Amino acid sequence: MTLAHEPRDPDFEARVRDSFGRQRLMATIGARLLRISPGRVEIEMPFADGLTQQHGYVHAGVVTALVDSACGYGALSLAPPGTEVLTVEYKVNFLAPARGERFVASGRVLRAGRRMTVCSGELLAVSGATETPVAAMLATIITVSDSCAAANPA
Amino acid sequence: MTLAHEPRDPDFEARVRDSFGRQRLMATIGARLLRISPGRVEIEMPFADGLTQQHGYVHAGVVTALVDSACGYGALSLAPPGTEVLTVEYKVNFLAPARGERFVASGRVLRAGRRMTVCSGELLAVSGATETPVAAMLATIITVSDSCAAANPA
Amino acid sequence: MTLAHEPRDPDFEARVRDSFGRQRLMATIGARLLRISPGRVEIEMPFADGLTQQHGYVHAGVVTALVDSACGYGALSLAPPGTEVLTVEYKVNFLAPARGERFVASGRVLRAGRRMTVCSGELLAVSGATETPVAAMLATIITVSDSCAAANPA
Amino acid sequence: MTLAHEPRDPDFEARVRDSFGRQRLMATIGARLLRISPGRVEIEMPFADGLTQQHGYVHAGVVTALVDSACGYGALSLAPPGTEVLTVEYKVNFLAPARGERFVASGRVLRAGRRMTVCSGELLAVSGATETPVAAMLATIITVSDSCAAANPA
Repeated sequence: MTLAHEPRDPDFEARVRDSFGRQRLMATIGARLLRISPGRVEIEMPFADGLTQQHGYVHAGVVTALVDSACGYGALSLAPPGTEVLTVEYKVNFLAPARGERFVASGRVLRAGRRMTVCSGELLAVSGATETPVAAMLATIITVSDSCAAANPA
Repeated sequence: MTLAHEPRDPDFEARVRDSFGRQRLMATIGARLLRISPGRVEIEMPFADGLTQQHGYVHAGVVTALVDSACGYGALSLAPPGTEVLTVEYKVNFLAPARGERFVASGRVLRAGRRMTVCSGELLAVSGATETPVAAMLATIITVSDSCAAANPA
Repeated sequence: MTLAHEPRDPDFEARVRDSFGRQRLMATIGARLLRISPGRVEIEMPFADGLTQQHGYVHAGVVTALVDSACGYGALSLAPPGTEVLTVEYKVNFLAPARGERFVASGRVLRAGRRMTVCSGELLAVSGATETPVAAMLATIITVSDSCAAANPA
Repeated sequence: MTLAHEPRDPDFEARVRDSFGRQRLMATIGARLLRISPGRVEIEMPFADGLTQQHGYVHAGVVTALVDSACGYGALSLAPPGTEVLTVEYKVNFLAPARGERFVASGRVLRAGRRMTVCSGELLAVSGATETPVAAMLATIITVSDSCAAANPA
């Protein structure tokens, strides 16, 4: 698939950083932006005990939050000025337990339509030099005007 | 669809409560078990500022965590003694912004196979007497022996 | 979830029948419209040897085609005049082999937004008096103007 | 993700060809196997009027059938002797209308577990030298013993 993307807003990186800074969940779980390029965003999070499921691995919902934000910001990096993006839906496959020292979520745009953007995301668990794929996401994201976004998802 | 289920473990409720108690994420986000019946589990969570996305609504990942746990425990409520359940994958559609005083996630088993269980889940936002559907999930869950569950998802 | 729907086009049934008649695949696989009501459509298909997978059951793709059309026409039954609907994405869980004398797909609207409609679908296999759930779908459908629909999905 | 795979059955190619030959739907829609390698299978189909939806493009269900079979055979190419694969579920995003002279579906294994295999699939529409991505799939496939496969999906 064609994955070279042209940003429609020269300030795309600042927009992503600004919006990420307002996602209070990201601070709560200790996540930070790692890399931003047009159509591709990476988010990193260290392991934390308070985020685990019953076996001591990171909960699927936290894995999903990270990959969802990476996909959403991948989509936002290509959105025109004056618009916002909202997640319509996603699907996640879990490939391995989310155990590791830290986790790197990435989201990349497969197709950027005028209204609908489709993103592919993944989460890697990292321990020393070892990277293990933990989750794969396919997500649908809608672009809406700023005023609309705060009121209603779609 | 046939949704009357017979538990294969008479202690199903204690198993669900015990496992839920070990999901540290549930405590972190303030979630608690609301109802447990064979093949159906409800989880409740009050709104909290620290769990929000950029518009001040609860983040999709937290919504997903709640519905995933409700579906997983719905599946566990029907699992034979000596087994555990693991989420293989899920898909979530977002129907409305996750704004409300509290949120009620429910998971119910659509089909309980020997190995694979399929669950349907939803999240309602509750404010006063108003209930708004926020998310719909379709999830695949695998039943594994206890020893297996801690080591590997599938 | 609220599932009582008001049609926005009094001719919704004729629109659904007309569009279904132009889906040549439906004729090829022997499918016909069974019931149409606002936000809910049923499609029926008899078993046919030419539609099978390697074990002699109906192929997952045919199951999906039936449930997708049922969901899409469920959405169309609620769409305003002058618009069309297009499937953005769907997810299907397979619950049992698609074996039976005939199959009944149903699609119902969970949420009808201005642009995005979310539908739940299922397929039952019917043999004599026995009905077996074969597949469960969760689908996202977009409403577009007629002129737009023929050109581009989203 | 690690996508180099070792086949566990030296006769993997013959197994895939044999099973594909028994999928009568593939003959009905004019599909044929294009390439088979360990963990990756491609299937080709020319456009045909009888497979269309209401706008004259190939129906989403046929697109799905092709990508599902490509994913399933990608999984089968890595399955041990004496086993079969069954699709547990899949999710498909539609990226563009399925219009073209012919269509190439590919499926590749993202993770081959002992029981569960996760595949990524796509469909390209081909017209002359132009290739357009039409659909992206994420699929979960289960490996079962031969005797089990004919009886029950999971």
